[in-house]
Amino acid sequence: MAPVKVFGPAKSINVARVLLCLEEVGAEYELVHMDLFQAKEQNSPEHLARNPFGKVPALQDGDLVLFEARAIAKYVLRKYKTEQADLLREGDLEEAAMVDVWTEVEAHQYHQALRLIMLECFLNPTLRGLPTNQAVVDEAVEKTKKVLEIYEARLSEHRYLAGDFFSFADLNHFASTFYIVDATPYGSLLDSYPRVKAWWEDLMSRPSFKKISANMTTKV
Amino acid sequence: MAPVKVFGPAKSINVARVLLCLEEVGAEYELVHMDLFQAKEQNSPEHLARNPFGKVPALQDGDLVLFEARAIAKYVLRKYKTEQADLLREGDLEEAAMVDVWTEVEAHQYHQALRLIMLECFLNPTLRGLPTNQAVVDEAVEKTKKVLEIYEARLSEHRYLAGDFFSFADLNHFASTFYIVDATPYGSLLDSYPRVKAWWEDLMSRPSFKKISANMTTKV
Repeated sequence: MAPVKVFGPAKSINVARVLLCLEEVGAEYELVHMDLFQAKEQNSPEHLARNPFGKVPALQDGDLVLFEARAIAKYVLRKYKTEQADLLREGDLEEAAMVDVWTEVEAHQYHQALRLIMLECFLNPTLRGLPTNQAVVDEAVEKTKKVLEIYEARLSEHRYLAGDFFSFADLNHFASTFYIVDATPYGSLLDSYPRVKAWWEDLMSRPSFKKISANMTTKV
Repeated sequence: MAPVKVFGPAKSINVARVLLCLEEVGAEYELVHMDLFQAKEQNSPEHLARNPFGKVPALQDGDLVLFEARAIAKYVLRKYKTEQADLLREGDLEEAAMVDVWTEVEAHQYHQALRLIMLECFLNPTLRGLPTNQAVVDEAVEKTKKVLEIYEARLSEHRYLAGDFFSFADLNHFASTFYIVDATPYGSLLDSYPRVKAWWEDLMSRPSFKKISANMTTKV
């Protein structure tokens, strides 16, 4: 069988979300790079046929075409699930619920807090030639601290977010945390939260995280 | 067994998301009202113990406490799943993926387009005494039209968003669509998209949608 194809640039947060899942389950895949900034390939007829909203990533698996990163990621995790790599835990009602809770927290709390730091300190200056709005950053940093405080409490009770097992909930935190640490002056925020810091170091020691992050680093 | 408890006001979009799921699967439940505006009960120690982020809804089922509406909703749909009420379709890899795709589209495209119309035309004037910013509304209306165009195409291929079966993906569109139609001058936006309009009327004819919307209407 042909390997699944993922369309999008390796540096995209949402592409990384899908690639990490493919690595975690050991699936064969091909990454088809897309240029979003110069050629704007997300607006090409080929890509709009994959995703009418013109976003990345998209996935092609035989005749099946999917979009929306979290939906693609779950498809991959279900299709290639093994006893060792069961990141959704859908066989257990309560475990699956806790995976869902902390996956939603990532989307609506964690990412919302961190994304303005990324935007102002990294994306705007490097990709768009725009200055950093420090007032926006300062507010986002305060919001991030409140979120990290709650994470510190949660990770004092359990080794991982959904419980004492690594799951999709943890994995979803990869790209925004990676960029805060790698590409902004605010990586040291984690240092005040020892459980969060230890959790992050644990995640980054996984082969999948090492491999995917190697293609994302902003450092020369 | 004691019925599950849902904490939050019936008029909240995210509370409605969970209540609709409970109605669809025919589960017994108790809604515990919370006053978010005067008493700010979401910040009480009791509620922060349920959800450290101080949001609604939360769910209690015996010793299990969950938060984040989409996570709660999926727990309910899995726990009480029947052959007639299988809204996640997790037994079928491709169907489950399409449910996930259009559930994510609701969160990241549809709701993002509609929410500013709701905020400016309904929530700000009625709950906060703020004037409507028409420029923001106009931009949101244009964004909504683009989204509805894509929905029109999708619903020309299939009766429902994930395929020819009603699913969690459709259900998630309830509250924001209901408020646009019921509480803003922009309900007529749907009239230009006959497939979308027919889909919405089909959804609103379901007993669950009728029952939950009866407690949400803003009309006297």
